[in-house]
Amino acid sequence: MINILFTGNDASWDEYAPHLTEAFKQLPFTTNLARDIPPAEVDYIVFGGGEAPITDFTPFTRAKLVQRLWAGVEDIVDNKTLTIPLARMVGGGLDQGMVEWVTGHVLRHHLGMDAHLHGQDGVWRNDVTPPLARDRQVTILGLGALGQACGQALAHLGFPVTGWSRSQKQITGITCLSGQDGLLAALSTAQVLVLLLPKTPATENTLNHETIARLPKGAVVLNPGRGGLIDDQALLDALDRGHLAHATLDTFRTEPLPADDPFWAHPKVTVTPHIASATRADLAAEVVATNIKRGEAGEEFLHLVDRTAGY
Amino acid sequence: MINILFTGNDASWDEYAPHLTEAFKQLPFTTNLARDIPPAEVDYIVFGGGEAPITDFTPFTRAKLVQRLWAGVEDIVDNKTLTIPLARMVGGGLDQGMVEWVTGHVLRHHLGMDAHLHGQDGVWRNDVTPPLARDRQVTILGLGALGQACGQALAHLGFPVTGWSRSQKQITGITCLSGQDGLLAALSTAQVLVLLLPKTPATENTLNHETIARLPKGAVVLNPGRGGLIDDQALLDALDRGHLAHATLDTFRTEPLPADDPFWAHPKVTVTPHIASATRADLAAEVVATNIKRGEAGEEFLHLVDRTAGY
Repeated sequence: MINILFTGNDASWDEYAPHLTEAFKQLPFTTNLARDIPPAEVDYIVFGGGEAPITDFTPFTRAKLVQRLWAGVEDIVDNKTLTIPLARMVGGGLDQGMVEWVTGHVLRHHLGMDAHLHGQDGVWRNDVTPPLARDRQVTILGLGALGQACGQALAHLGFPVTGWSRSQKQITGITCLSGQDGLLAALSTAQVLVLLLPKTPATENTLNHETIARLPKGAVVLNPGRGGLIDDQALLDALDRGHLAHATLDTFRTEPLPADDPFWAHPKVTVTPHIASATRADLAAEVVATNIKRGEAGEEFLHLVDRTAGY
Repeated sequence: MINILFTGNDASWDEYAPHLTEAFKQLPFTTNLARDIPPAEVDYIVFGGGEAPITDFTPFTRAKLVQRLWAGVEDIVDNKTLTIPLARMVGGGLDQGMVEWVTGHVLRHHLGMDAHLHGQDGVWRNDVTPPLARDRQVTILGLGALGQACGQALAHLGFPVTGWSRSQKQITGITCLSGQDGLLAALSTAQVLVLLLPKTPATENTLNHETIARLPKGAVVLNPGRGGLIDDQALLDALDRGHLAHATLDTFRTEPLPADDPFWAHPKVTVTPHIASATRADLAAEVVATNIKRGEAGEEFLHLVDRTAGY
């Protein structure tokens, strides 16, 4: 009997428990999934977060893995009591949802869709033929599972895609850059910039006065990554000056974004409420089951967090 | 010396002549591209349309081909004086542009983007996780070059795509249907319906009271094909009744769409001004040059119109 502790709020439990139960039935051993298992008897922790998350992992003396149900781990990665492996969610619908949101919003800006949506006034404005995707440069900062999937989807549609990451990568269809010089080069061509970096001390305010100045005039920023990647005031200044044309933001330093935040009312900002990518319980349950199966077979866990890098 | 007559208005000539000239330089024979060649001396007609298009082809006694610069030929295909081959534009940026517009507008509806664009009011609405593409059925009516390219792009993004055409086709990634029963089946699953049929007497009012009733409640219609494919009043009725959720229309029976047309003001209709797909002069010039080269080499022309089918 493998004891699997689920930690998360009621809504999260109601959403995930049936799918986890179903996925665990396929495992070659019996499992006990519950929210109230004595810490010393827990084998695996499925960590959905919620109102009162675990902050002290010391009592979980025999646990083998903490498995997060989503991609970000910035709230847990620095916990000194967490000495067992920590896995992020990779897959579980996160990548597919992100591809759909990023592709949709890149195309929205590429096609000039807003002008048409707001221009239902009887005036036939067809004098400008917009460029094809092949003439619209997209840059993605962050080439993890999400950045890579989004970059390849956009490249498949014909966009020239540049990607930047901390360590140099090689990804089919994407021009990969790294390092500080690489960052400035990646920014310099970005007609659309997509932020998909993890939130770590090193990525805080990646988009600031200096880096925004490297973007071509009229660039559009999409941030489905993390709010802390952007210096908010620098972004607002650049929009007001007309250096940037638009920002579509899905993540914020404070969520829900307060009703009086200037982003809501800004004519060049679109706020979406952290919906770019959500874990889908049915798909995530399969990922969790696979990792527990690997653990019991003595195999290496998938999607482990590099505690030094912070993601 | 091969004489190539360009017929089209000044703007069209200014746009295409430099690119055609450049493309013709690569041909293994000399060409004379002009707008005023005596009919009996014309070898090829590049037909851009315009204010005073050719209506009598009888004097063009030695011409080998009429090459259209765009996809639709409904205004010329029934001309009894046109007895030489007629080629449509295929490629030339038309397919790529259409893929971008269709993919963008499918994603706009799929992601519920309008609700966010119109909901910048400080209320954080993230309680609904929309379905992934794999749970959103798209049906494309018309599987010519444009329909096929759009269907495959959507399938690559994860949408289940059903396509319908007059004659049965087999296309990787698309569930292909044909015939009247196939049409009703294709409509019955269409959460998003894309019209990309040619305009012929047989396709007139393909979307009418009866066929709209076959669509699931809440379906969205995209029409980047031809205005005549839809019975406009039937569409408005279905939107008003709430059977259809939205229509995004790029083509109309009368263009420009008159300012007092009810489509402009309808809250569930988005009008775009026939911009879904435009021929790009540089790419189209290559297609024209290739066809002329084939003609001079005695090879079969590409993209010939089936005069009986009408496209």
